[in-house]
Amino acid sequence: MTQPAKWQRAIHAPNAEYLKAASARQTQLTKPAGSLGKLEQTAIDLAAQQAREKPAVDKIHIAVFAADHGVCAEGISAFPQAVTGQMIANFVQGGAAISVMAKHLGAHLDVINMGTATPPPIDAGVIDEHIAAGTKNFMHEPAMTEAECVAALNAGDRAAERALQQQADLFIGGEMGIGNTTSASAIACALLNERGIALAGPGTGLTSEGVAHKANVIDQALARHGNQHAPLTVLASLGGFEIAALTGAIIGCAARGIPVLVDGFIVSVATLVATSLRPEVGDWLHFAHHSEEPGHTRVLQALNARPLLNLGMRLGEGSGAAVAVPLLRSACALHNNMATFADAGVSDAS
Amino acid sequence: MTQPAKWQRAIHAPNAEYLKAASARQTQLTKPAGSLGKLEQTAIDLAAQQAREKPAVDKIHIAVFAADHGVCAEGISAFPQAVTGQMIANFVQGGAAISVMAKHLGAHLDVINMGTATPPPIDAGVIDEHIAAGTKNFMHEPAMTEAECVAALNAGDRAAERALQQQADLFIGGEMGIGNTTSASAIACALLNERGIALAGPGTGLTSEGVAHKANVIDQALARHGNQHAPLTVLASLGGFEIAALTGAIIGCAARGIPVLVDGFIVSVATLVATSLRPEVGDWLHFAHHSEEPGHTRVLQALNARPLLNLGMRLGEGSGAAVAVPLLRSACALHNNMATFADAGVSDAS
Repeated sequence: MTQPAKWQRAIHAPNAEYLKAASARQTQLTKPAGSLGKLEQTAIDLAAQQAREKPAVDKIHIAVFAADHGVCAEGISAFPQAVTGQMIANFVQGGAAISVMAKHLGAHLDVINMGTATPPPIDAGVIDEHIAAGTKNFMHEPAMTEAECVAALNAGDRAAERALQQQADLFIGGEMGIGNTTSASAIACALLNERGIALAGPGTGLTSEGVAHKANVIDQALARHGNQHAPLTVLASLGGFEIAALTGAIIGCAARGIPVLVDGFIVSVATLVATSLRPEVGDWLHFAHHSEEPGHTRVLQALNARPLLNLGMRLGEGSGAAVAVPLLRSACALHNNMATFADAGVSDAS
Repeated sequence: MTQPAKWQRAIHAPNAEYLKAASARQTQLTKPAGSLGKLEQTAIDLAAQQAREKPAVDKIHIAVFAADHGVCAEGISAFPQAVTGQMIANFVQGGAAISVMAKHLGAHLDVINMGTATPPPIDAGVIDEHIAAGTKNFMHEPAMTEAECVAALNAGDRAAERALQQQADLFIGGEMGIGNTTSASAIACALLNERGIALAGPGTGLTSEGVAHKANVIDQALARHGNQHAPLTVLASLGGFEIAALTGAIIGCAARGIPVLVDGFIVSVATLVATSLRPEVGDWLHFAHHSEEPGHTRVLQALNARPLLNLGMRLGEGSGAAVAVPLLRSACALHNNMATFADAGVSDAS
């Protein structure tokens, strides 16, 4: 593997002093201890990650990476491959779920074309990081070359750098790519030593026969690529330019001290690649939601993650993370603005 | 039981035309069918309840009812009874969780004193619906008289009327009352024919011995009040002025066509009383969160409810409902603002 670039810089731990102060503050607020549930640790972790007394999730940087997948030739998606490019246009024109949510949240949205089979009908407003017209079909050959994999990781790292330049309080990565649950499932199978059937799911809407075929495609690909568990080799072999970019972005954010709110199945697989490469990335992650895509359960287990939401969502684009943002904002508002028992003259537990 | 008042008016069904139109719209938006999970039905239900093409949760009316409980004499709470009055002051002064969340959401917050053992240290800003200095101890006598119960229901109905006058898009009821998980658990036991141990939980922080004692207190009260399941008799016998007020408010909102976002354990028990009296109330409810209070699981089952959130919260005050509000807002934003496949020129599933 070629020597990696910026996304391999040192990752420091969140600030221990602010962690301690925020933990102490939570015990003094006018509520029974622990009664805000997961919102308490969320606020404490944000305080430590942001090294602030008062954590905030005001400025949000969302980066949606789109790319096509050669494995679509195997008939593993309910939607035609042209939809990837069409959805890039929908992202920048404001009609997609993530576009609506970005506007609703007042978040910055970057749409990044990593390489589609057919060019999107609109160029304006799209960040061009085109590597190739989609990956190769990993049933027959590696999805990408080592150089392409590093290029995709570096494109993700540039997204993290843009988030830093915009002084983002939080980073959300999203994805679009017809066929990418097949790629993500294959990557997770390789890293977790599972068979296709353990991770393959309906994606955008396969029948049970379609899921069985998808699992079979994954098993054949795993057999072809051998018993290889090195994360970067797995990533290059089973591909997804957008998945590799997400991996680079997540590591890049951790290296720059930006907390990451992890979306659903695809982004969680990119996160699994990231933490397999750099376990210390784990200190910078919040998990937004448990996807309806069945393989997400296994991936979340491997990440030791308990997401905030479980709404039966399975849309991608970063939409589940966007929907979870107000929970982080509420956690911060409560942490920062509630009175202490002493301030309010309220008696503590007897 | 005395003839009830305004909260017993007719309850009409949500608008069937808007229900149909909203359901159709969800299938046309640029996403795989069903991929927004519970957010889809939430938007559809709001459209039908509000009889609008574009549902909205802009104006929110939060009413927090506070009262004391005679059963506190049995030592069933981790906090002293004086906290109820102290927290009323904290609510109006802005330091409590629900106060912080109301401000954060831009919601209207009414704080209603239904009757505390010791007067709150502050009167200003508190709506006075004082019935008595707390309920009687239901271990020895009915918690309230029939007249007191009707007065509390009517106070809740007045809150629903204020929400209507303010043209609220959504109503949230909250509660505060040291000892009220004991009262709520006893009511749920009586309505659901359960023993104390099936519903009693730690509340604000009892030990396991404390929970066993609480269950025993409930069983003795159930034995004393007999095998009586008529909802209004149960409500008067096992009390809670704030629980009766919530019941009146929930029915009053349904009767006025205002959707209700149900908070945690206590409000769910008030909802159970409401739906036991008037099953058609069920069409006007959204369920915010699954509380950490263990008895909530049984009550949600009886209500056939699957809440949006499960964050391990157990604070009360309506705080769980407030934290869930942004999910309703996101559901509306996505429903109202996403492009259709036709609008965006995106291919539908093959």
